[in-house]
Amino acid sequence: MNITITGGSGFLGKKLAERLLAANELVGEDGASSAVENLTLLDVVDPPEELKNDPRVTVLTGDITDRALLEKAIPQSTDSIFHMAAIVSAGAEEDFDLGMSVNLDATRNILEICRGNRTKPKVVFASSCAGFGGDMPRIIEDMTARTPQTSYGTQKVIGELLINDYSRKGFIDGRALRFPTVVVRPGKPNKAASTFASSIIREPLQGQTALCPVAPESKMFLASPRSIVQNIVHAHNLTANEWGFSRETTLPGFTMSIGDMAEALRVFAGNDVANLIQWEPDPFIQEIVNGWPPEFDTRKAKDLGFIQDTSMEAVIQAFIDDEL
Amino acid sequence: MNITITGGSGFLGKKLAERLLAANELVGEDGASSAVENLTLLDVVDPPEELKNDPRVTVLTGDITDRALLEKAIPQSTDSIFHMAAIVSAGAEEDFDLGMSVNLDATRNILEICRGNRTKPKVVFASSCAGFGGDMPRIIEDMTARTPQTSYGTQKVIGELLINDYSRKGFIDGRALRFPTVVVRPGKPNKAASTFASSIIREPLQGQTALCPVAPESKMFLASPRSIVQNIVHAHNLTANEWGFSRETTLPGFTMSIGDMAEALRVFAGNDVANLIQWEPDPFIQEIVNGWPPEFDTRKAKDLGFIQDTSMEAVIQAFIDDEL
Repeated sequence: MNITITGGSGFLGKKLAERLLAANELVGEDGASSAVENLTLLDVVDPPEELKNDPRVTVLTGDITDRALLEKAIPQSTDSIFHMAAIVSAGAEEDFDLGMSVNLDATRNILEICRGNRTKPKVVFASSCAGFGGDMPRIIEDMTARTPQTSYGTQKVIGELLINDYSRKGFIDGRALRFPTVVVRPGKPNKAASTFASSIIREPLQGQTALCPVAPESKMFLASPRSIVQNIVHAHNLTANEWGFSRETTLPGFTMSIGDMAEALRVFAGNDVANLIQWEPDPFIQEIVNGWPPEFDTRKAKDLGFIQDTSMEAVIQAFIDDEL
Repeated sequence: MNITITGGSGFLGKKLAERLLAANELVGEDGASSAVENLTLLDVVDPPEELKNDPRVTVLTGDITDRALLEKAIPQSTDSIFHMAAIVSAGAEEDFDLGMSVNLDATRNILEICRGNRTKPKVVFASSCAGFGGDMPRIIEDMTARTPQTSYGTQKVIGELLINDYSRKGFIDGRALRFPTVVVRPGKPNKAASTFASSIIREPLQGQTALCPVAPESKMFLASPRSIVQNIVHAHNLTANEWGFSRETTLPGFTMSIGDMAEALRVFAGNDVANLIQWEPDPFIQEIVNGWPPEFDTRKAKDLGFIQDTSMEAVIQAFIDDEL
């Protein structure tokens, strides 16, 4: 199998690459598992040394809006593409043109290159629950209209639509996955409004204080990096028929209040750790989080065999095992 | 008011132009009615002489994918744009690139030109119920997911998303309207699968036979040209606030079986006329029509003051008054 990951140096792209290389198999077009022969990682920065040193890995560093680079990343021999690269929410909101060019135009270029190759590769597109917004029903289903309230969400929904239409036309064999908010992310807080959801677990576990800008009763729809990466591979390995008339789904996640997350940390790691969370309400962040629908019915995804995290405790344990 | 209609020589574009010129008013940004000073009609073919000869009309003939022509059609003085031009369903399905370039790229160019003008014009976008498809709930609402099963439908939904995001960002003041199937269209049958819905009324009224390729119990979601054109103007004249978090809606229509349409014709024009309908089942057309959801809940549109046709008899009478 010849595989390309865009955003291959990103948090999830890297984990996906590691998983594919370790498993050394992926289900091909014929339904049978094949070995990973070539894995091309495209990103603006280099991946870590362990990945670079794997003889199966080709590193392409550069701008995804560069069509020539994309063509190099997706030669005719490409069997599967995991399109993870994106300008995230705050970035696409700050710089509209950058968001449109990376999230929309580069996605379209990938699809056009696949179409030109005439090899109908599998394409797994990383989308987002940010496609939902505004006055939503209490429980979001796959058949709930996408009425995004950010440019990032808009661009992701357009990507889902293109994945569907290019698949229907037989240009690709695509799948689009709407990710829940990922916890626990390693590293430092970033500019995402949701960054505290990782901070309040990650920092206390390392003896540092973490600010929580939202009220304990605020709810979020969450999934761990492990379950998301496993689900990305599962999405790839399903047959086209199993997807049916729509190549998209929201991945299973769990809905939890921030207070219950803090309580899970207390049960797991004790009072001293949990007390490192400092509750400092920030009305700006609170309002953004209030706009995110927390309850999802992911029946379709579960029927298709996608997995869901079993407990917050397991998510915390996985973070410790994988990152600390 | 300086107004531009793309697709200004098309069936609905022409009717809209006539209506705007006759009324000689449109509600401007300030909420007050203003006279129609300039009306630019952009299309691949010239509009009829009556329109061309109106001193307020400027005719621009050419390809909407020509960015320079679009810039000419949308100068900085433009207050309002009615974007009606499109490659229709069968055309976009036959020629994928043409559909993408007219239905998606030209729409985006219009929005980008508006953004560049920094005048935040009103933009009314003609969309379609073709955005709905696949396994749908029995009754379609505005909050039902768009899962189009044609490239045309895909491109129209993307247009709706862009209209929303460009409005949210303050680049335009946009509105997107999903039209029901339009009956009764004048002229000859075209390549649209729905063309029979007009033929079975239009041809018999003129003493000609008409083939009906679907079973009498087949249902469709319909609206007259008159109600659609009135609703286009209404969509324009609503304030941004009235639209709320989503700048899109399905226009009110009526759901009717083809058999009931034929019966309405019989009541209206007598047995001899209605008997000119020849029922010749075509499994290909029947299957396409079966895929169209016939039942819509258009509560939002009705709450916003959009109108609905009162009866099939009134629709037939309006066709006779306007076209015969």
